[in-house]
Amino acid sequence: MVGQRFVQLLHNHPTFEISVLAASEKSVGKQYAEACRWVLDEDIPSQVGDIIVSSIEPSGHAKIVFSALPASVAREKEPLFAEAGYHVCSNTSAFRQEPDVPLIIPEVNAGHLELIDVQRRQRGWSGSILTSPNCTTTTIVMALKPLDDAFGVKRLFATTMQAVSGGGHPGISYLDIVDNIIPNIEGEEEKIEKETCLLLGKIVDGRRIAKEIVISVQTNRVPVVDGHMASLSIGFEEKPTVEEAIRVLSEYRGPESVRDLPGAPKHPVIVHSAKDRPQPRRDRNSAAGMVATVGRVRVCPLLDLRLVVVTHNAIRGAAGGAVLNAELLVASGYLQ
Amino acid sequence: MVGQRFVQLLHNHPTFEISVLAASEKSVGKQYAEACRWVLDEDIPSQVGDIIVSSIEPSGHAKIVFSALPASVAREKEPLFAEAGYHVCSNTSAFRQEPDVPLIIPEVNAGHLELIDVQRRQRGWSGSILTSPNCTTTTIVMALKPLDDAFGVKRLFATTMQAVSGGGHPGISYLDIVDNIIPNIEGEEEKIEKETCLLLGKIVDGRRIAKEIVISVQTNRVPVVDGHMASLSIGFEEKPTVEEAIRVLSEYRGPESVRDLPGAPKHPVIVHSAKDRPQPRRDRNSAAGMVATVGRVRVCPLLDLRLVVVTHNAIRGAAGGAVLNAELLVASGYLQ
Amino acid sequence: MVGQRFVQLLHNHPTFEISVLAASEKSVGKQYAEACRWVLDEDIPSQVGDIIVSSIEPSGHAKIVFSALPASVAREKEPLFAEAGYHVCSNTSAFRQEPDVPLIIPEVNAGHLELIDVQRRQRGWSGSILTSPNCTTTTIVMALKPLDDAFGVKRLFATTMQAVSGGGHPGISYLDIVDNIIPNIEGEEEKIEKETCLLLGKIVDGRRIAKEIVISVQTNRVPVVDGHMASLSIGFEEKPTVEEAIRVLSEYRGPESVRDLPGAPKHPVIVHSAKDRPQPRRDRNSAAGMVATVGRVRVCPLLDLRLVVVTHNAIRGAAGGAVLNAELLVASGYLQ
Amino acid sequence: MVGQRFVQLLHNHPTFEISVLAASEKSVGKQYAEACRWVLDEDIPSQVGDIIVSSIEPSGHAKIVFSALPASVAREKEPLFAEAGYHVCSNTSAFRQEPDVPLIIPEVNAGHLELIDVQRRQRGWSGSILTSPNCTTTTIVMALKPLDDAFGVKRLFATTMQAVSGGGHPGISYLDIVDNIIPNIEGEEEKIEKETCLLLGKIVDGRRIAKEIVISVQTNRVPVVDGHMASLSIGFEEKPTVEEAIRVLSEYRGPESVRDLPGAPKHPVIVHSAKDRPQPRRDRNSAAGMVATVGRVRVCPLLDLRLVVVTHNAIRGAAGGAVLNAELLVASGYLQ
Repeated sequence: MVGQRFVQLLHNHPTFEISVLAASEKSVGKQYAEACRWVLDEDIPSQVGDIIVSSIEPSGHAKIVFSALPASVAREKEPLFAEAGYHVCSNTSAFRQEPDVPLIIPEVNAGHLELIDVQRRQRGWSGSILTSPNCTTTTIVMALKPLDDAFGVKRLFATTMQAVSGGGHPGISYLDIVDNIIPNIEGEEEKIEKETCLLLGKIVDGRRIAKEIVISVQTNRVPVVDGHMASLSIGFEEKPTVEEAIRVLSEYRGPESVRDLPGAPKHPVIVHSAKDRPQPRRDRNSAAGMVATVGRVRVCPLLDLRLVVVTHNAIRGAAGGAVLNAELLVASGYLQ
Repeated sequence: MVGQRFVQLLHNHPTFEISVLAASEKSVGKQYAEACRWVLDEDIPSQVGDIIVSSIEPSGHAKIVFSALPASVAREKEPLFAEAGYHVCSNTSAFRQEPDVPLIIPEVNAGHLELIDVQRRQRGWSGSILTSPNCTTTTIVMALKPLDDAFGVKRLFATTMQAVSGGGHPGISYLDIVDNIIPNIEGEEEKIEKETCLLLGKIVDGRRIAKEIVISVQTNRVPVVDGHMASLSIGFEEKPTVEEAIRVLSEYRGPESVRDLPGAPKHPVIVHSAKDRPQPRRDRNSAAGMVATVGRVRVCPLLDLRLVVVTHNAIRGAAGGAVLNAELLVASGYLQ
Repeated sequence: MVGQRFVQLLHNHPTFEISVLAASEKSVGKQYAEACRWVLDEDIPSQVGDIIVSSIEPSGHAKIVFSALPASVAREKEPLFAEAGYHVCSNTSAFRQEPDVPLIIPEVNAGHLELIDVQRRQRGWSGSILTSPNCTTTTIVMALKPLDDAFGVKRLFATTMQAVSGGGHPGISYLDIVDNIIPNIEGEEEKIEKETCLLLGKIVDGRRIAKEIVISVQTNRVPVVDGHMASLSIGFEEKPTVEEAIRVLSEYRGPESVRDLPGAPKHPVIVHSAKDRPQPRRDRNSAAGMVATVGRVRVCPLLDLRLVVVTHNAIRGAAGGAVLNAELLVASGYLQ
Repeated sequence: MVGQRFVQLLHNHPTFEISVLAASEKSVGKQYAEACRWVLDEDIPSQVGDIIVSSIEPSGHAKIVFSALPASVAREKEPLFAEAGYHVCSNTSAFRQEPDVPLIIPEVNAGHLELIDVQRRQRGWSGSILTSPNCTTTTIVMALKPLDDAFGVKRLFATTMQAVSGGGHPGISYLDIVDNIIPNIEGEEEKIEKETCLLLGKIVDGRRIAKEIVISVQTNRVPVVDGHMASLSIGFEEKPTVEEAIRVLSEYRGPESVRDLPGAPKHPVIVHSAKDRPQPRRDRNSAAGMVATVGRVRVCPLLDLRLVVVTHNAIRGAAGGAVLNAELLVASGYLQ
């Protein structure tokens, strides 16, 4: 499903062009339209549908490889491409925790890209691996980053309500989730806690230092197609007023190096003033699915502030995030 | 909708019998089956369907009045019945905050029933008003009470995922909630915070003393028919281990005066060990919809413990709760 | 899923008792509660959950075997049981088309049971195989039978709207069916056409003669948990009025031999007069899920009459139908 | 809801420009963003949101009026505009059955536009009223027209599965339609039967002659947000093969006068070869929601051919249809 989102986003991309589509052996040699079972609501781009699927081997003239492989396959294949000179923009969890592999949301920690130099030096690669975080981490961190810059995040409560597409296709069955909620997504809570601290951390002497935040996450799967929602309560070093928090979120632009990337939204965070927003279905597609929509910013009786945030898990939280990472890579000169 | 649940529960009740059905003027004189638009999935009990609807006036030989009136109507009508000698078991919010009106979940605070004596004395009523809490408060407090008794609850984070039936019929439109979540239920958060402290409080010298707990609640409406879920994080005076908390919850029986009421579940709280439970659709009907099902009891990095709880909002959280209150009233000798 | 429905229905059955639960090798030796992944909304009966799962071999003192095996496994295993003296009440499609295997809905064609004698003679079996039809065929035929008896069905248009549970668990994914309809269920249309003619046919000289009806069926999968709906238009030998049709449907009782079976509803067909019924969610559970609920009986501009019918596919259309077949078998003296 | 779709479609229209937004008295004087409760998933266009809402009176320099008024209000207001020289493109049912008011789907019966001359002459109007059909009629007729031209439609069975947005906002409640189907939409079946015959009829001597087709329609409301589906069985004067029917549908272009309208899809009908298409969610947005997607074209045992068709009820079947009518009006010179 993330693969299909990659196809959708890259098909009309202003600077990237799809030259090779690679998949597992059972698809090799078939037309993509026949090999994939296209499940997105928009039609498959017809030129792309005609491409003959290749095997997952480093070959062809492409410079960037977008990977939505299963983690175990990614673990084996992605390094082969990096070694052969390709830049792998991965949406898998395979290498996210490696100390020399950047885990990046451009508006949050574009500077971590410098880890690539460490990575290439240490591993002797002419290419590289660059990862984007778990979709729910993305939702949470996009709302946290402006506040962390301004007031210092120290504690975080998060209850997530995650869309079904976050589990890929076919994912959970209708019989299991309609008129229902599943109060756990295996392994997700740990990932969110770790990745959040990494993304808000810093690079010192080529080493990644995770930020120390005490985090408590409760994940839930809800009957929503696309759009992860998180209800957050945040404790700060310096407690802001609600108005200050709203201003900081609304005015956030991200690092300058990121603002002009083709896929970067003008404002990474949109603050909605209506009392019943954000909503997954009505806000997930704002700004082409690349923003975090925040609402209900208010005082928390226990920590300092509470808010609710929604992002499109399959675009911003997956394929769109990895494409933006690739744009950052290009803009940073790594392809020359 | 709560009225229909009352009909459903009282129809086969071992000791109560429906003698009068009263509704607003436009229904008076019609058969109930014709006057109500029956919306429950189970058929309307045929004998009840034939009853001619009366106006909302104190008359007839019934001793107990079950009220699911709109709050503003309840405010006017319920005292007329109490004055005329009827015991009003109300599921409305009209009198929940009055200092001499008991707000009761029998397993939680049956002892608060003594406020009725104060109420009757002060108001000169031969009858009384007895209220049951908001449906979401019920969900939360049923899980908190055993833990409060054992370890003392001091702080509470709650994120709720509330079923659509909690808003009555017709309630929210399909177009607004399918594939979506509404991150706010107007006025609900304040109600939950207040009522939770009242229910866990005590009566001293005929006065209700609310317990002091710092509470932060974030409410959400989710696409679920019945069954409110709440994700809780709790801070205690004495931090229990996970095992201690599970034992206390599982073994909880409520006050002795309550255990033999016809509608009281053997165990008010069921603890589920599966990692993906409780779920609204699969757990709401446990023990005839009268229990709280708890799962995912685990340590919280921020407060002490976390857990997830589900109850049937329309049964335990509404009509079933008020019927159990009436049973308590009878068992306590108030009808003699 | 049908297996779990069998457990649910047999657990409290007045005359049957579950003595053995058999499943494929990977479950053998485990407790049933552990081996099955229980997916029904009501709890697993605790005594049944403790039973140790056996392998699928003829052994034990049971006389009746209820089979919800995959068709290919049923093809191999069911005859082994029949040969060993067990009566197999099967809900699979494996033997439905065999000329000496009765395909039965008791209220429709209880008389076809006599095929068992042919079957046992021809195959030399001391036991037998008895089948129940496809769930959608059941829905359609229960509404047709009374009309066929009275007016002779000659032509039938049927558009089905079938619940997701008809495809078993896990079945179709949420992402494929929410906010959507799939206008085809592979192989289902042919099954319905064949089985309908068989069920309304007769046995002549020990041979099954299918009734000649011209049938056009269009199947659809819809986002409904349980409850198949079919919109029918029917052409008759003698065209009835709407009132005649309603009377015939409402008064239908089925053959006398069937009326007192424990699981037989008093009236196999209920006719609803409300203009917006039947509805899957509100009518599927009528009479314990064992009736066909009919509504919107009206003149058809093209054929003679139109109507809409709903049954519970997983109860009447699957496990409940097979249990009723077993009751018929017992009442007919085949177990002595 | 149709009004909001009009705003959405007209906002970026190549030739039309929104100059006035008119609504009932309670909205007059407010900003549109504040007056309407925007319910579409895409954001409200910001320039439009700032427009101050006017009362529904003929004034301002616009030439075309798009009307999505309630039928009773339309009945009173639309003639006032037509008399004052405005061309009213109406999506209401108020005047659809008037003999001198054209009911038009441009690709189907653009020639009926000549009725406007009759209308203006008879009524002495300098403007006109032009109507688009019921959303479900549109779905059905778009699939029928090419076949009618080629083979002559004589008989039609239709079972519809209609999306919730067809009933406007808020429309049916979640509690009534989730996990459910309502087998009737009041008044809809008659509308479809009448309008289908009108649309496929002709104008002779300034009079509209409805085509004689025997039609049997069964309507259903299903839990789908947007996208009406109809399952059709069709009898012809000359029975085509499946291949001929597919070719005729695929190659259909509509009258030449319509092909270059800005909103006209290149092919009004798309034929899908996959056995599980069309599907409402996956096909409703094809070609900007302006096409009819057809699938499962096959022989019918009762009539001649069967097929399934989906259109976007809120775009092609409502606002988009009326905008295309306005484009036809402009292209035909009626605005000079």
